[in-house]
Amino acid sequence: MNWSEFGALLDGATRILLVTHVKPDGDAIGSLVALTNMLRARGKAPIPVVDGGMPEFLKFVPGSEQVVGQVPALDYEVMVSLDASDEERTGEAGKEGRGRAWKVVNIDHHPTNTGFGEMQLVDAAAVSTTEVLWNGFTALGWAIPEAVAVPLLVGLVTDTIGFRTSNVTPHTLRVASALAEAGAPLYDIFQKTLISMPFSTVQMWRSALETAELKDRVISATLTLDGLRKAGLSQASDAGGLIGFLISVNEARVAAVFKEVTAGSVEISLRSKPGYDVSGVAFELGGGGHKQASGATVAGTMEEVQQRVLPMLRRIARRKSSAS
Amino acid sequence: MNWSEFGALLDGATRILLVTHVKPDGDAIGSLVALTNMLRARGKAPIPVVDGGMPEFLKFVPGSEQVVGQVPALDYEVMVSLDASDEERTGEAGKEGRGRAWKVVNIDHHPTNTGFGEMQLVDAAAVSTTEVLWNGFTALGWAIPEAVAVPLLVGLVTDTIGFRTSNVTPHTLRVASALAEAGAPLYDIFQKTLISMPFSTVQMWRSALETAELKDRVISATLTLDGLRKAGLSQASDAGGLIGFLISVNEARVAAVFKEVTAGSVEISLRSKPGYDVSGVAFELGGGGHKQASGATVAGTMEEVQQRVLPMLRRIARRKSSAS
Repeated sequence: MNWSEFGALLDGATRILLVTHVKPDGDAIGSLVALTNMLRARGKAPIPVVDGGMPEFLKFVPGSEQVVGQVPALDYEVMVSLDASDEERTGEAGKEGRGRAWKVVNIDHHPTNTGFGEMQLVDAAAVSTTEVLWNGFTALGWAIPEAVAVPLLVGLVTDTIGFRTSNVTPHTLRVASALAEAGAPLYDIFQKTLISMPFSTVQMWRSALETAELKDRVISATLTLDGLRKAGLSQASDAGGLIGFLISVNEARVAAVFKEVTAGSVEISLRSKPGYDVSGVAFELGGGGHKQASGATVAGTMEEVQQRVLPMLRRIARRKSSAS
Repeated sequence: MNWSEFGALLDGATRILLVTHVKPDGDAIGSLVALTNMLRARGKAPIPVVDGGMPEFLKFVPGSEQVVGQVPALDYEVMVSLDASDEERTGEAGKEGRGRAWKVVNIDHHPTNTGFGEMQLVDAAAVSTTEVLWNGFTALGWAIPEAVAVPLLVGLVTDTIGFRTSNVTPHTLRVASALAEAGAPLYDIFQKTLISMPFSTVQMWRSALETAELKDRVISATLTLDGLRKAGLSQASDAGGLIGFLISVNEARVAAVFKEVTAGSVEISLRSKPGYDVSGVAFELGGGGHKQASGATVAGTMEEVQQRVLPMLRRIARRKSSAS
């Protein structure tokens, strides 16, 4: 990992574009805003872009008000892509940016990262892209002010679901401690990202748990457009919390939430216990992710999609994979 | 805090009795077993006692097989009480031990500790009694082997509900990192203490969420004997997780779970957001607890109990209490 080259490139640049993946989560926004705030502290004026602008639930992150919804029509010396495993995932912002930037830097922690761009800073051992950034900033000797510590901890806490994933190491906890020491409010971040939810989420869980089924070590739940409408919801929120709940069932090795997005399209979230790898299934379905957490969006009716995907998951749940 | 005196006392003793509080939780067993294993590593043969013996769900803690259910009829040079805020809380084991021990050492982290015993090592700033022990062992220069690190981390993780309580500090995270470095398996401990649940819990949640209601800032859910039977359950488990879920709803200030225990008796669990105090209601109903978490068991049918209790809760939810 060549952080000194990265440091020199950014320190020498003026027009810097920062992008992340579409449907940004805590680590996407965390890494995007952390790098924005760090570069500002170093006298730069980077432009962070997310398709559609800042998601409401992460607007508490200081510095996130700088995020814009579209790439300004300029030339850029460098575009940094954060937390995106491939170019497609960076959406319109990435597409527009690739046409306007001389150089693309790819910073990520997904093991499935395709290695795009002119410079890759990808560390699959890191729990979050913000952990990758922390390692890099520290290697460069860049001190971490509070405005950078907060978004870094947001990424760390959300991608590990509060230190609960199997990839958390003593190093992760040391980084969290250092970020809290630098002023990032751990309790507050827990409350705002993992613990608070609207009442509609309870109604969504109710609708989903009515369908919960455990068969051959695969636990699954279904969110249909009809079920969501009956619960008074236009759209499902927080499928992440729900699937985390399902995979914590002792008898389950694999968990799946099937969410009807339109009449002919189903979004699938997958989780697995250590030793059971769901990333292959997600890939086969045109999606992506990690061994223990992945997902895909598949064309077809709910029934068609489940008839296709559930047998794939049961095969995975049958025995421990040798690789993991 | 005089740890060197504690070290000298224990190093000079031969017959050592260790006790904790009744209905032991992760921090009670964690601190009891951690001190047991540490003293064994120092060539001692302490006797750890818990009324009724080891609780099933914590038997995975290495060294917990040494815990016995009754105080052997010997004389003891010293009895150490761990994680108990008063003498009463140490149950039969403590009562028997006080009659047989020459000296009592009181190690705890509860701010309500009564200061009993001949030596007090009480630190109300610590998140768990295992954090108090870690600080002490470190002050004494006693190296922490894996067999001690595991129970110490069990106490730390369970008492903070996985680092989620407001008293977690950068120091807590540093201790957790050091314990993980020493071989304590964080992921495993999460799985075995906070995350794992039987599939029947999902069915219990399904039954409860069907009844979930939000009115006047009070969110409530009901578990009837009939509903539990339909879910294939003889008894409700994990009402704690359920009420934690309900109080995380943004629109709610107070959460209540009403659980039918027998045809004429209802167990009520209460939670509130900071600034809203449910301990008074619990007290009025003959129960007890803290401002933000309390409970009671009330005689009457489900309907009678709810008609009595819900208006009390709505009054609490109406405005912030001045005291909290």
